[in-house]
Amino acid sequence: MLFAVTMEVHLPPDLDPGFRADLLAREKAYSHEWQRAGKWPHIWRRSGQFANLSILDVDSHEELQDILWNLPLFPYMQIEVTPLSQHPSDIALS
Amino acid sequence: MLFAVTMEVHLPPDLDPGFRADLLAREKAYSHEWQRAGKWPHIWRRSGQFANLSILDVDSHEELQDILWNLPLFPYMQIEVTPLSQHPSDIALS
Amino acid sequence: MLFAVTMEVHLPPDLDPGFRADLLAREKAYSHEWQRAGKWPHIWRRSGQFANLSILDVDSHEELQDILWNLPLFPYMQIEVTPLSQHPSDIALS
Amino acid sequence: MLFAVTMEVHLPPDLDPGFRADLLAREKAYSHEWQRAGKWPHIWRRSGQFANLSILDVDSHEELQDILWNLPLFPYMQIEVTPLSQHPSDIALS
Amino acid sequence: MLFAVTMEVHLPPDLDPGFRADLLAREKAYSHEWQRAGKWPHIWRRSGQFANLSILDVDSHEELQDILWNLPLFPYMQIEVTPLSQHPSDIALS
Amino acid sequence: MLFAVTMEVHLPPDLDPGFRADLLAREKAYSHEWQRAGKWPHIWRRSGQFANLSILDVDSHEELQDILWNLPLFPYMQIEVTPLSQHPSDIALS
Amino acid sequence: MLFAVTMEVHLPPDLDPGFRADLLAREKAYSHEWQRAGKWPHIWRRSGQFANLSILDVDSHEELQDILWNLPLFPYMQIEVTPLSQHPSDIALS
Amino acid sequence: MLFAVTMEVHLPPDLDPGFRADLLAREKAYSHEWQRAGKWPHIWRRSGQFANLSILDVDSHEELQDILWNLPLFPYMQIEVTPLSQHPSDIALS
Amino acid sequence: MLFAVTMEVHLPPDLDPGFRADLLAREKAYSHEWQRAGKWPHIWRRSGQFANLSILDVDSHEELQDILWNLPLFPYMQIEVTPLSQHPSDIALS
Amino acid sequence: MLFAVTMEVHLPPDLDPGFRADLLAREKAYSHEWQRAGKWPHIWRRSGQFANLSILDVDSHEELQDILWNLPLFPYMQIEVTPLSQHPSDIALS
Repeated sequence: MLFAVTMEVHLPPDLDPGFRADLLAREKAYSHEWQRAGKWPHIWRRSGQFANLSILDVDSHEELQDILWNLPLFPYMQIEVTPLSQHPSDIALS
Repeated sequence: MLFAVTMEVHLPPDLDPGFRADLLAREKAYSHEWQRAGKWPHIWRRSGQFANLSILDVDSHEELQDILWNLPLFPYMQIEVTPLSQHPSDIALS
Repeated sequence: MLFAVTMEVHLPPDLDPGFRADLLAREKAYSHEWQRAGKWPHIWRRSGQFANLSILDVDSHEELQDILWNLPLFPYMQIEVTPLSQHPSDIALS
Repeated sequence: MLFAVTMEVHLPPDLDPGFRADLLAREKAYSHEWQRAGKWPHIWRRSGQFANLSILDVDSHEELQDILWNLPLFPYMQIEVTPLSQHPSDIALS
Repeated sequence: MLFAVTMEVHLPPDLDPGFRADLLAREKAYSHEWQRAGKWPHIWRRSGQFANLSILDVDSHEELQDILWNLPLFPYMQIEVTPLSQHPSDIALS
Repeated sequence: MLFAVTMEVHLPPDLDPGFRADLLAREKAYSHEWQRAGKWPHIWRRSGQFANLSILDVDSHEELQDILWNLPLFPYMQIEVTPLSQHPSDIALS
Repeated sequence: MLFAVTMEVHLPPDLDPGFRADLLAREKAYSHEWQRAGKWPHIWRRSGQFANLSILDVDSHEELQDILWNLPLFPYMQIEVTPLSQHPSDIALS
Repeated sequence: MLFAVTMEVHLPPDLDPGFRADLLAREKAYSHEWQRAGKWPHIWRRSGQFANLSILDVDSHEELQDILWNLPLFPYMQIEVTPLSQHPSDIALS
Repeated sequence: MLFAVTMEVHLPPDLDPGFRADLLAREKAYSHEWQRAGKWPHIWRRSGQFANLSILDVDSHEELQDILWNLPLFPYMQIEVTPLSQHPSDIALS
Repeated sequence: MLFAVTMEVHLPPDLDPGFRADLLAREKAYSHEWQRAGKWPHIWRRSGQFANLSILDVDSHEELQDILWNLPLFPYMQIEVTPLSQHPSDIALS
């Protein structure tokens, strides 16, 4: 089942540069893992903002919770979750 | 270039049923046309709401404006537009 | 899978009383049907407001959309949907 | 009497890990105690957020205040409280 | 138990004057009835607005719902409800 | 003249316990003083929140400002002020 | 005592022109009356909006309520009221 | 002096087509007049919305008010006004 | 030309008392200077809040920016600016 | 393609003065560079606020992202982005 997930990142400007670089590297590796597993089919940058719009494709709300809760950046994020379903105007339906 | 577009529809409850059915049929046909042209690669229902989240892939802001302005439901919609760019964590980049 | 759904109802004060009574009767019957099917395990009035807080237990986002879209009061409602998952502090887990 | 209570948790990302682990352990134990007493019949995770939706069943507003004020996480929480009453569409009434 | 209730009234400016006068007269009589019963101990005008701040003292959430739902102005009101409890700084406690 | 005053308190979770206890003791004593003087006829806890709803009865806006500005918790408070007047439905008027 | 009062006017675009002209003429005459009485010392247009910022100087909250409630445009207005007091930086104090 | 002005247009969907066409034609002619006079140096469509972002260059707040108040679409607009001044990073200053 | 300016002050509660006293003294002296120059004709305390409502009378947006930017409290302020013009109901016009 | 970009700056009041001066100098130099390249045709101060309204003219969303992300003040900014297109009332079109 599909969810639109918006993640805004709020890192303190004075974060230690090494810690910050490591954090972002772990975030990227973590995201890659779930993208390769087919659970995170889309990730886009919201241009001009430290934020992304993602589409997640999970088997349950528990799996959604598990993926998001373990994001390395989770403690710095404000997250919004919207359940999606197939739209009647989708050409895949005709 | 990609845009996330959220469209919320506010139809008056007492709209003439025939007019309403025609309006929705024209909306679907119009959306199909742009989906087939590759300009509207994704459309999802926000579950439980008369609203959708769409991804548009256009050549210019004028084309974006042209597609949205001519939606049959445009006069009944509240629309939000967010420019998207490739995310550095996208596996397509690695 | 569980969703918290908040439904606020905005009926025009000058709605025809017969139409209004019929609408509310159909809403109640429709809700009863899904409650009996086990898909709508909880419905509470938000005290002092024409609104309810409901818990829905559905098999998919499409089923959620189907149940809410067909509510007789849907055209008069403002709806918010929140996906729920099991909480680690739930005693059912210990 | 029933209340819907939404609790959002805002822990500083640089909280001492031991303090944090102890805080969460005490929060769970405290919640278990009230769940066992029948005062806290439901607790759900809002998927993807450090937040829960709970239903409390208390004898008075003072008891509600007492339970929430003494939550170990209270100083880190933003709390919303909504009084609930029986809904006329509840099948328990028919 | 005590509730703070804020009631904002939104009457259409072109409401029939006779209907409006009757509505306000019935609202006043209804409020008087509950004030005399001791259930509505305070009602204040928010100066400069068609709105009041009231304190209700009820036995249950169902009674609160019953009183507010049957207000003659209810269909024209936006209502907010806040549960109150005794404050530790109240001199009645010392 | 009457004012409804809502005071939300935001104390840092890591405030020194002794300082905090002293602050709250001074706040209570200060509030008692004005309650005894008849200037602060009501104070209620908003259940489940570190906040109160108070009614102040002052002679001037300068007196209102003086009472609130000197609250020991003032630097930690977010305050909203609403002027109240007698409501035409108040039974004291009939 | 002084109040800052913001009045936003929302007239239906299809209001009868004669009714509208009469309404605005009565509003102006009514405002003139209170300005001459010294109760309405300032009225400014918020540039580019159908709205004003006014300063009222009244003897009580009841007088404030009386002046605003009887504005010919009151049924079309959204009003905000802020109590003002002398500022310690006012040179009138030095 | 410069102002950023955002104008959102809310036309009723059932407006008479002839009236609507005339209204938009008069709006365009009116805007052209002020653009030619050098008072309205920029007007951009906010893509995907019935709204524009304009820059106005006027001699006084009264002139700003006069230009906006007489817009044919004014009764259907929600307008926000922001005063602008030269930015210290503007290369025109170096 | 006139502007309504609202200034809310957010000083950290643990600011050094000497620094705070000096800051407020410099703010008062700075405000006095502009009041004497006729550029700051009104300043009122918003009762019960660390905030003021001011009227500024300046020659240009650059002068407005210069006055506000150099306020000693500017780094601690949240400021809103509203351009004002003469109101057609102002008796000074009749 | 054009974007309106609003940048609000939130610098901690206790930032080291030398660091702050260097940061602002780098911001100005960076902005100059893009203005000279024709990518940043307009930058205006929002009078009375530590904020600007800018117009950017970029070739892609990636370029927009690149310019904004590398602003020296980016970690201290809240940014809003609005895509612009040619307005049908623009005299350049007639």
